[in-house]
Amino acid sequence: MDNRYDIAIIGSGPAGISAAINAKIRNKKIILFGSKDLSAKLIKAPKINNYLGFYNVTGEELKNQFQRHMDSMGIEIVNERINNVYAMGDYFTLMVNEKMYEATTVILATGVEYTKPLSGEEKFLGRGVGYCATCDAPLYKGKIVTIVGYNKEAEEDANYVSELAAKVYYVPMYKGEYNLRSEIQILQDKPVEIQGDNFVSKLILKENEVDTDGVFVLKDSVPPAQLVPGLEIEEGHIKVDRLMKTNIPGCFAAGDCIGKPYQYIKAAGEGQIAALSAVSYLDS
Amino acid sequence: MDNRYDIAIIGSGPAGISAAINAKIRNKKIILFGSKDLSAKLIKAPKINNYLGFYNVTGEELKNQFQRHMDSMGIEIVNERINNVYAMGDYFTLMVNEKMYEATTVILATGVEYTKPLSGEEKFLGRGVGYCATCDAPLYKGKIVTIVGYNKEAEEDANYVSELAAKVYYVPMYKGEYNLRSEIQILQDKPVEIQGDNFVSKLILKENEVDTDGVFVLKDSVPPAQLVPGLEIEEGHIKVDRLMKTNIPGCFAAGDCIGKPYQYIKAAGEGQIAALSAVSYLDS
Ligand SMILES: Cc1cc2nc3c(=O)[nH]c(=O)nc-3n(C[C@H](O)[C@H](O)[C@H](O)COP(=O)(O)OP(=O)(O)OC[C@H]3O[C@@H](n4cnc5c(N)ncnc54)[C@H](O)[C@@H]3O)c2cc1C
Ligand SMILES: Cc1cc2nc3c(=O)[nH]c(=O)nc-3n(C[C@H](O)[C@H](O)[C@H](O)COP(=O)(O)OP(=O)(O)OC[C@H]3O[C@@H](n4cnc5c(N)ncnc54)[C@H](O)[C@@H]3O)c2cc1C
Repeated sequence: MDNRYDIAIIGSGPAGISAAINAKIRNKKIILFGSKDLSAKLIKAPKINNYLGFYNVTGEELKNQFQRHMDSMGIEIVNERINNVYAMGDYFTLMVNEKMYEATTVILATGVEYTKPLSGEEKFLGRGVGYCATCDAPLYKGKIVTIVGYNKEAEEDANYVSELAAKVYYVPMYKGEYNLRSEIQILQDKPVEIQGDNFVSKLILKENEVDTDGVFVLKDSVPPAQLVPGLEIEEGHIKVDRLMKTNIPGCFAAGDCIGKPYQYIKAAGEGQIAALSAVSYLDS
Repeated sequence: MDNRYDIAIIGSGPAGISAAINAKIRNKKIILFGSKDLSAKLIKAPKINNYLGFYNVTGEELKNQFQRHMDSMGIEIVNERINNVYAMGDYFTLMVNEKMYEATTVILATGVEYTKPLSGEEKFLGRGVGYCATCDAPLYKGKIVTIVGYNKEAEEDANYVSELAAKVYYVPMYKGEYNLRSEIQILQDKPVEIQGDNFVSKLILKENEVDTDGVFVLKDSVPPAQLVPGLEIEEGHIKVDRLMKTNIPGCFAAGDCIGKPYQYIKAAGEGQIAALSAVSYLDS
């Protein structure tokens, strides 16, 4: 297949970028999904001393070094959020809203969410609570949907859902201008609990409460088990062996998403191992 | 104990240095053993593209960055070769010829030997073949000893042994000036096979053969199982879990010595994990 990639890398933090440069050096056809800023956890760091080779740098400076490394090698980031990865046997299908990509191997480098789940979020997962608004939007045709958005990208999803749903509430968990369709009602409030019987029926906020048929919680990263159905998880992280293999053949993982310690160079080292493992999987 | 270190790190390649900077950031009392050049495998690399943050650098340039990082943090390398590490229960004793160091935890970051063993080397290990000339010298009092030296440091060992042995042959595996006592006979030749019955009796070289009671093979790194008695090895590498723990409590390992792929940033990432695991072992 002409438009099938050898390696699709999901996540543009140190783990994903390190995987990308190592796979590119081995002449593989790669695609790297993530954010133009590389990683929020990179640009936010005030001072970094523990990445061997760089002493006393800001996260912004380290990010610029990583960007320069990618630029020198002609590696670009595709600014898209992967919603689902399906193992198809000898290849994978990656879903981005209405778009689809194919790759023979996948490297998961999606980081972790530091924010705690909302009360009721885990209980109602799959019964009104979801992490991919665009995937599940058709289920909410003519219904009431609430979107708790942790970043600007969530606004696009809200706009999309509002074309189908009868009503959309948007709860922004960040400050800024909101680029939302006029039908969407913004709730400047803090979500406290998701309630319901068998199914979600209500979202309690600090100063409000709204009746709702569904709640989408849109954070920087989707829980890996939601992203890749069938992926084995161990104590909240993707289970891998020392060569970064997951339980799904052809699917590898690296960085914060596979476990502690949460650190840049640990993530970069694992990204390298994952890439080299994917290369030898492809070559065998 | 005042002169007991929290963490002793053996090896000054990327794994050992990364362990040192991470342990120092956590305020541990550390000692780092290795070479003033950091690592032969670092300075010999003609061009490095796969260490995230540095593109198209020579090994020498990367080495200088690592050195600068250590200098900024006041980390120094103790230029000594550890011959043996003994687990004493709640601490470790590290032997350097006649000297001794004590540490509560140990991180092994000794790299690997790319050179193949000599024919007969493994067969006669412990029966005339050894890796630590100064440790075993007393066994060869009045006998004939041959030293196959892969680096200048082996010359010191040869000089030491020649004070006890009846005769010492020195087979240098490198070019240069040799700083050896006049009693030592230099054989400019290539060793081919170690022979004997139950015990070593002969060394066959390409153009010579010599009768000998013992052969010491002195390379850049000692096989880990020789260095640390009781250490569990798996397929030629030190066995560790994902947190870099070996089978011996308080003993961690990182870098090439724990397995492939043999790469800088993989080694640096693992050095970081090993250091943080040692820190949490110390704090618990
Ligand atoms: C304020 C702060 C300071 C820190 N300081 C240090 C420090 O000094 N030293 C240190 O070693 N560590 C530090 N850390 C920890 C470090 O940031 C993380 O360990 C590191 O970023 C992990 O790298 P990663 O590549 O695994 O994931 P991340 O850096 O989290 O990158 C994951 C990327 O994947 C993207 N992504 C996730 N899901 C998808 C998807 N479905 N589709 C497309 N893209 C997706 C995310 O948007 C993100 O860009 C700090 C963290 C914070 C928050
Ligand atoms: C020519 C060449 C080019 C390479 N190019 C690349 C490349 O482009 N990219 C890449 O990622 N990798 C490359 N590598 C591989 C890379 O060099 C290794 O993976 C890396 O150096 C491993 O780091 P380490 O810290 O585990 O061990 P090492 O770098 O081998 O360091 C181990 C150190 O421990 C010391 N030591 C050992 N035993 C003892 C003891 N008992 N007491 C005291 N000190 C001890 C050794 O003398 C050495 O200084 C290259 C290797 C070579 C030889």
